Amino acid sequence: MDSDEFREAAKAAIDEIAEYYDNISSQRVVADVQPGYLRPLLPASAPLDPEPLAAIRADVRDKILPGITHWASPRFMAFFPCSSSYPAAVAEMYSSAFNGAHFNWVCSPAVTELETVVLDWLAQALGLPDCFLSGGPTNGGGVIHGSASEAVLTVMVAARDRYLDRAVAHMPEGDARDEELWRRRSRLVALGSAGTHSSTKKAAQIIGVRFVAVPVAEESGFALTGDALAATLADLRARGLEPFYLTATVGSTDVCAVDDLEGIARALAADDAPAGASAGDVWVHVDAAYAGTALLLEENRHLAAPMAGFHSFNVNPHKWMLTTFDCSTLWVRDRALLVTSSLSVKPPYLRNQFSDAQLVTDYRDWQIPLGRRFRSLKLWFVLRAYGLRGLAAHVRRGVALAERLEALLRRRPDLFAVFTAARFGLLTFRVTAADEADVNARTEALYAKVNGDGEFFLTSTVVNGKFAIRVCTGVERMREEHVQRLFEVLVQGVEGAKD
Amino acid sequence: MDSDEFREAAKAAIDEIAEYYDNISSQRVVADVQPGYLRPLLPASAPLDPEPLAAIRADVRDKILPGITHWASPRFMAFFPCSSSYPAAVAEMYSSAFNGAHFNWVCSPAVTELETVVLDWLAQALGLPDCFLSGGPTNGGGVIHGSASEAVLTVMVAARDRYLDRAVAHMPEGDARDEELWRRRSRLVALGSAGTHSSTKKAAQIIGVRFVAVPVAEESGFALTGDALAATLADLRARGLEPFYLTATVGSTDVCAVDDLEGIARALAADDAPAGASAGDVWVHVDAAYAGTALLLEENRHLAAPMAGFHSFNVNPHKWMLTTFDCSTLWVRDRALLVTSSLSVKPPYLRNQFSDAQLVTDYRDWQIPLGRRFRSLKLWFVLRAYGLRGLAAHVRRGVALAERLEALLRRRPDLFAVFTAARFGLLTFRVTAADEADVNARTEALYAKVNGDGEFFLTSTVVNGKFAIRVCTGVERMREEHVQRLFEVLVQGVEGAKD
Repeated sequence: MDSDEFREAAKAAIDEIAEYYDNISSQRVVADVQPGYLRPLLPASAPLDPEPLAAIRADVRDKILPGITHWASPRFMAFFPCSSSYPAAVAEMYSSAFNGAHFNWVCSPAVTELETVVLDWLAQALGLPDCFLSGGPTNGGGVIHGSASEAVLTVMVAARDRYLDRAVAHMPEGDARDEELWRRRSRLVALGSAGTHSSTKKAAQIIGVRFVAVPVAEESGFALTGDALAATLADLRARGLEPFYLTATVGSTDVCAVDDLEGIARALAADDAPAGASAGDVWVHVDAAYAGTALLLEENRHLAAPMAGFHSFNVNPHKWMLTTFDCSTLWVRDRALLVTSSLSVKPPYLRNQFSDAQLVTDYRDWQIPLGRRFRSLKLWFVLRAYGLRGLAAHVRRGVALAERLEALLRRRPDLFAVFTAARFGLLTFRVTAADEADVNARTEALYAKVNGDGEFFLTSTVVNGKFAIRVCTGVERMREEHVQRLFEVLVQGVEGAKD
Repeated sequence: MDSDEFREAAKAAIDEIAEYYDNISSQRVVADVQPGYLRPLLPASAPLDPEPLAAIRADVRDKILPGITHWASPRFMAFFPCSSSYPAAVAEMYSSAFNGAHFNWVCSPAVTELETVVLDWLAQALGLPDCFLSGGPTNGGGVIHGSASEAVLTVMVAARDRYLDRAVAHMPEGDARDEELWRRRSRLVALGSAGTHSSTKKAAQIIGVRFVAVPVAEESGFALTGDALAATLADLRARGLEPFYLTATVGSTDVCAVDDLEGIARALAADDAPAGASAGDVWVHVDAAYAGTALLLEENRHLAAPMAGFHSFNVNPHKWMLTTFDCSTLWVRDRALLVTSSLSVKPPYLRNQFSDAQLVTDYRDWQIPLGRRFRSLKLWFVLRAYGLRGLAAHVRRGVALAERLEALLRRRPDLFAVFTAARFGLLTFRVTAADEADVNARTEALYAKVNGDGEFFLTSTVVNGKFAIRVCTGVERMREEHVQRLFEVLVQGVEGAKD
């Protein structure tokens, strides 16, 4: 395939993609295929000889597209949005053209340097304290990971290494120190709340430490409170266990709860750590994967202030910030804690004069994998093509749409009860009924009916035993008409079920 | 930005990208910028108001492109190739358009189903035993990860969980079982050879287990042998340690060594495991990240046969198979070992009818992160647009080019000594000199001079104390003229140093 053929095929693909987005609002949101639909449509093995790109592109249209769920549809209200945009799509084309493994600075200096600059831009735009800037007072800085799961695993590894290093710092190297390391390792506990995203539990499972979820209560909006954390810490200490890490959440996945960051800081300051541990030994990571984008709004900026007392922070621009998946931005207050941890390995074939002279950042030591995509390019395109004001307008619209839906639901208390109020474009609600079991059953039935019909795609959750329907309004193309129509569908669904 | 503006900007970008590749052979291969070059060229913060895409695209040309190292240049002979191709680039455009988090089948059925089909195609094309096919006798299957590092970490986690599950399977649940779990965990050893890629050591560090490298010797081509493994196993057993995992390598990073897979199988079968462990307890993962692509050639197919006795296998199509980064394909013999391990978490907000009915594959349980890109599309495009014969021709050319360079170097034994012969498009060599220290010094000086000049980009390595220059000839655009020219540059470099 020469470059002229590429020009032709790629430009035809551009037209198809533009058409896809032009028509996306009129498509059924969830793919209408059955499990196993694709295999019978494809040959049993790869072809021996080349096929024309036109034939492959036709198969994309005829065989792949019917199996695509449209995350950019204005009737996609499930999970969190996984957003894209035209500027990000153009950036991804360049990123793919400048293909490389990009693990070290020398692999493509622009890849590393743009990432550092753009993460400083974004940290400022979100109002993060200066300690997270690459030129800040504590030598912090940002890095782009593929997902929040990787960000959480990365900082948990760094937190564990820092904790264990301190725990045996007083001992000379040798067998006794090794034994003590293994003894302490077996007592480590990673903490989250019952509302913390499952990636924290998974990270703990991966590194082989206990995970303990602090309970949350409906009265405090399912947020992790300082008192609940203090009680769990005391319980763990009494059992000889050693908490070393906590994920606090700004915008939990199930109900968009915001943990009490000040209360958490107070509880940790008062934590009566045993000999060998010290105050500040618990690394606090703040996961704002979805709702962090709302810090672009002036009125939410106060949420970032307590971050000055914590260790790391992540937000996923691929969720609500119109940046194509994968783009999970992570900041740490002290980057040395990453590059001196288990994350760093330096085999001879990765050495080079720039790294050896410590003149440059090698992001391979800031993450799980070695290789990395040129992800900062799309974030740079989005920040510039929308401008911070344009992004703020997009976020405000999502916030307002959930509030609008809440207002509509509250007009029909005979049918619906808002379970958790609209916050950051997410609300949950339940169907009203005589008793709890009936509420759960009727809410689950409504949920199954709406998703089964395929006009809208919603998510459900179960919090402290309560089944709720969960609606997220962060998709860029969503407008009031879509929320209004959802409300009608919900009303019809409940009233139809009564008949 | 509306769809017409997107069409215009994206098509202009296509022209720029085609032009980039048309001219890539005449560019300096390594970016000629100094550390910190970019920041002064950019504003200190993100703009408040939107900027036109044309201005951003101009900055890509003027500010980013000078900082790009050209991995597709025919004079890029460093690391391993990180290859792209026009068909893969077009596929990435669709993948980006069908943006989503794709963690479950329902997120976009086509994303999961194409991945399963294409990995069956590729397993067949590489001659992998049937046990790695999704419909094979042991319920195996393939998955695409972002990098080999993630693949290795994933199978190491599954291997650890399987080992520990078996170790305490005879005990009732309770404190005693937990204590035994921690005791056994503290004795675990992940194995590799001294030539195993650093990702295995990093994975061991991440999950907090010991890593032990079995020594390799020049006489056996730096391959891991069964005898060396047996000796290490015996030593570990004698110290009360418990090996649970081994990375064997087909094509090591430093010298493209191929471990003795049959010898490894024999050593493990003869391993005198202590009570509570059993034969077959050591999970063997075969890492063929780069050289696995050479299994597309009939003459290498025999290398895949011993895989029938092992547990998992990975190859990175983004290295030598013309598939844009990121695309690391991983197969396991028994997929249940992934989805019943620490990798699986099932919070309520990820539940859905298809997953609950176990009708579908949810790839989130086969990997570290939750979300995932639609990566199979580019692999499908590449397999079809080149055909297996087209890919084989590409691989054969890379193999022949390294052999050609070896032949040239052997013509000048007064200047060069081949250190490891050309294999899979990779060879290493040293400058001749009176003694070892002088050989190292002169080889290092030549390496620094060639890379400093910027016409070629090479890598160096140090194996058992010997410094060698490492040349990899897998880039698609590379032709004999480039290898011939490199030889001239090397000769001039050594002869110039003598003056």
